[in-house]
Amino acid sequence: MKNKSVEDIVLEIKDKSELMVDLAYSSILYDNKIIAKEVYDLEDLVDVLYQTLQKKTLEKLSNKKLSVNDSLALLRLAAAGEQIADAAQEIADVELRDVELHPILKMSIRESDQVFTKVEVKSNSILAGKTLGKLKLASETGMMVIAMRHGDKWLYGPNKKTKIDAGDILFAKGPEDGEKHLIGLANGDTKEI
Amino acid sequence: MKNKSVEDIVLEIKDKSELMVDLAYSSILYDNKIIAKEVYDLEDLVDVLYQTLQKKTLEKLSNKKLSVNDSLALLRLAAAGEQIADAAQEIADVELRDVELHPILKMSIRESDQVFTKVEVKSNSILAGKTLGKLKLASETGMMVIAMRHGDKWLYGPNKKTKIDAGDILFAKGPEDGEKHLIGLANGDTKEI
Repeated sequence: MKNKSVEDIVLEIKDKSELMVDLAYSSILYDNKIIAKEVYDLEDLVDVLYQTLQKKTLEKLSNKKLSVNDSLALLRLAAAGEQIADAAQEIADVELRDVELHPILKMSIRESDQVFTKVEVKSNSILAGKTLGKLKLASETGMMVIAMRHGDKWLYGPNKKTKIDAGDILFAKGPEDGEKHLIGLANGDTKEI
Repeated sequence: MKNKSVEDIVLEIKDKSELMVDLAYSSILYDNKIIAKEVYDLEDLVDVLYQTLQKKTLEKLSNKKLSVNDSLALLRLAAAGEQIADAAQEIADVELRDVELHPILKMSIRESDQVFTKVEVKSNSILAGKTLGKLKLASETGMMVIAMRHGDKWLYGPNKKTKIDAGDILFAKGPEDGEKHLIGLANGDTKEI
């Protein structure tokens, strides 16, 4: 973390905090404590990032390497990200405290502007054996994979280099039409992305 | 609002608060005070929704129409949404206080997992004259339109029935590949969605 720029850190806080919100909703929708605990771990990481950013920003300001305005903008953006991470933890907490969501409320959250989905990649799926970057899954279907289960291993916030294997479980979010497309691709019915 | 169910209200808080975060980032990236002010207006709306939800939840609980657990889950989810809305307002505040973002920081935020973009729909674009629902823009390109400018009118969080006209400016967010696709469609170079 020592060598990261303040811009890199504020961006990491932004991306991680937004991923946390998505993971937290997935955890309550699929009653999944493993994902909910990951939100807690990420909150610890965001806390460290936030403290590092505050220190680096003030150091750069005192060394005249940042203006007062730039420092203010950085501190405010980071504080907002930290607040979003806290909110995500609050959501994950609903899952961890064994407050099982009422089915009507679950249905309602699933049907928001962006739907959440969970699919298993079958062995005859064209997704199997390819990377997310190669598939361009997000731009071709609108569905962003937020977490994956590979056997008993979990991966959160996968990137372009992440390979999908047959048997993997994908947790994703995106538009309703995209969900149908992704389900078809994962179960092998749809052969073209 | 009187006839909305508690599930509808909590969903509206979720959707509006997430839209607010996206609008807030767009406002600072494109130095747009109109969008930043909309974030403020939406924060007022979310406050009203939150207060209504609290009252309705406690009324239903006292009438034995909700369990203690369901009430707790509703109150916590709504509180988390309200917190995200506050964070969005904090981000919009950076724009409204004339703290112009340093170009390096702008570039860095634009290059997050999901990029933000702004495109004008040319008259020879295949998007012109069609609704978002007909185009399936989100699932075909991965790009979600978060705001549109039509002449001097603005629309935030458009839905499937929203029609795109030539000359409209779209503010959208999504994966990098999706941005290229959307730009090609909007400027008329790409004829197939």
